[in-house]
Amino acid sequence: MSEFDDLRARVSTFGTGDAAAEAAVRARQDTLTKPPGSLGRLEDLAAWLARWQGRAMPRLDRVEIVVFAGNHGVVAQGVSSFPAEVTAQMVGNFAAGGAAINQLARVAGAGLRVVPVEVARPTGDFTVGTAMSADEFRAAVAVGSDAVAPGIDLLCLGEMGIGNTTVAAALAAALFGGGGAAWAGRGTGLDQAGVGRKAAVIDRGLARHEAVLADPLAAAAALGGRELAAILGAVIAAREQGVPVLLDGFVCTAAAAPLAVLAQGGLDHALVAHVSAEAGHRRLVAALGQAALLDLGMRLGEGSGAALAVPVLRAAVACHSGMASFAEAGVSDGAG
Amino acid sequence: MSEFDDLRARVSTFGTGDAAAEAAVRARQDTLTKPPGSLGRLEDLAAWLARWQGRAMPRLDRVEIVVFAGNHGVVAQGVSSFPAEVTAQMVGNFAAGGAAINQLARVAGAGLRVVPVEVARPTGDFTVGTAMSADEFRAAVAVGSDAVAPGIDLLCLGEMGIGNTTVAAALAAALFGGGGAAWAGRGTGLDQAGVGRKAAVIDRGLARHEAVLADPLAAAAALGGRELAAILGAVIAAREQGVPVLLDGFVCTAAAAPLAVLAQGGLDHALVAHVSAEAGHRRLVAALGQAALLDLGMRLGEGSGAALAVPVLRAAVACHSGMASFAEAGVSDGAG
Repeated sequence: MSEFDDLRARVSTFGTGDAAAEAAVRARQDTLTKPPGSLGRLEDLAAWLARWQGRAMPRLDRVEIVVFAGNHGVVAQGVSSFPAEVTAQMVGNFAAGGAAINQLARVAGAGLRVVPVEVARPTGDFTVGTAMSADEFRAAVAVGSDAVAPGIDLLCLGEMGIGNTTVAAALAAALFGGGGAAWAGRGTGLDQAGVGRKAAVIDRGLARHEAVLADPLAAAAALGGRELAAILGAVIAAREQGVPVLLDGFVCTAAAAPLAVLAQGGLDHALVAHVSAEAGHRRLVAALGQAALLDLGMRLGEGSGAALAVPVLRAAVACHSGMASFAEAGVSDGAG
Repeated sequence: MSEFDDLRARVSTFGTGDAAAEAAVRARQDTLTKPPGSLGRLEDLAAWLARWQGRAMPRLDRVEIVVFAGNHGVVAQGVSSFPAEVTAQMVGNFAAGGAAINQLARVAGAGLRVVPVEVARPTGDFTVGTAMSADEFRAAVAVGSDAVAPGIDLLCLGEMGIGNTTVAAALAAALFGGGGAAWAGRGTGLDQAGVGRKAAVIDRGLARHEAVLADPLAAAAALGGRELAAILGAVIAAREQGVPVLLDGFVCTAAAAPLAVLAQGGLDHALVAHVSAEAGHRRLVAALGQAALLDLGMRLGEGSGAALAVPVLRAAVACHSGMASFAEAGVSDGAG
């Protein structure tokens, strides 16, 4: 699909990060006053940050959470238990500091930015046409790319958009197969019958756009949403700028997933922070070959799961940079 | 066993916490600007803190990590890959700020206290006699009880003691059955043959002390360790003083486990923070009917897993106390 060649060209330039920085972290870990490997994933996280930041001593001085918001034509099909105006109302709640993510950003020591992506102009209903034209999709991707602030050490992504678990499920089905029933979940609170209707809506979308589903970017334009496209753009820009990414739940992960299909290792700089209670997320995380850092039964979005994982990364960096070596501390090591 | 009637009497006075405070939290949660239940375990954690703090608005202004250290006669049986002198060396490393727990306490915003419990006087080798006399056991329990500072909002417990995963496995086997092979793990780094030898050492201890194993406190004296007894005392004192507890990994959980056997709900004020990679811990957490908050492959001890979970509790409290209600924020709720 030549209409997305510009984005495809950006993805084709993705590097594999700084292997020497990662190796330096792993070598240092084995000198620190702990049994080898006993900090488990904290050791891997320090190495991962080093590789993608390109620094042997990773840091988290500037952590930013960016929440993208958008609205969705497919809500006309009755796929959400909340009305579409809640998207704009919640953007107001973010600005006033009253939402969960405001509190979680403070605990994480992270900056918070909310980026509405044409909230007043919902995408098209994907059961009757494409969600976005190629130009609209590219514009939303550009909003996300531009939202990555220069010089940050970690980017946490989140979203708000009534109807967007339907959109995410449709995109996941397009990328990994399985149909609506495999990916539809309760969203903000559907009952079992509602989930069945949602799965049928997704299947109608998949059937209508079948001709373009083999192209991950065309699928994201036809079935996706502006806030999902913006997340995709932000993940691309973060890779280009040497910024590791924490993805939030189902919607965020689905938004970024086209990169894993477009390029081997295309999502290696982005970790799923928390596996959502939303039905399709566990399946999607497995399809990406990842293991989420946290599993606390949350299903809120807003970047909440990503924010909650920031202290885990801070712990990894603090141990790596602050611990004494066996020699420094005068502690006998296991070989002694 | 009349020799532990004083401790049994303390346990028999355990209350069930403040049900009204928990109910107030749950009622407030449903008014906040999020789909009902969408914060998952964060909602449960706020309710749990409220019940055990006895406050409808739980707080975490004063969080303290206490690490107890002790030495073990059973190391003479070759059950550890590190020499016993490492216990005292690591106490020195804690004091100098070079250990993992020093860094993790800082990230958690928690105070850190290290309490050596007669580190220079190892317990008896449980394969040839009792680890502690009744008086020695009671003295170590008292050290732990006295270590709970008045007025703290959360107590995180940890331990350091070369050989103490062997001791913890023996105690877990005494309390929940299964023998040495079910509970022995690699500790600080045994190979498979070493784990087999460790399981045989545990089985010799269980056989020698078979007559007292039906009494959880007598088992803890015969097979346990001073730092484990101190943890038990701290968990008892925390219950008496209205302080919720985060338990760290395998050793910590085994040390507190007698309370679950002695009294229905005897450990309800204590949560397992992180499920250790040490083999027996997952089995022990299941035996207690708990689900750990975190699972990050750590197996260090020192209170590291408990410290890592503190920001999760801070997030729960921050959301509960800081979020706006639907009415305050002018957001339509799902019924609207």
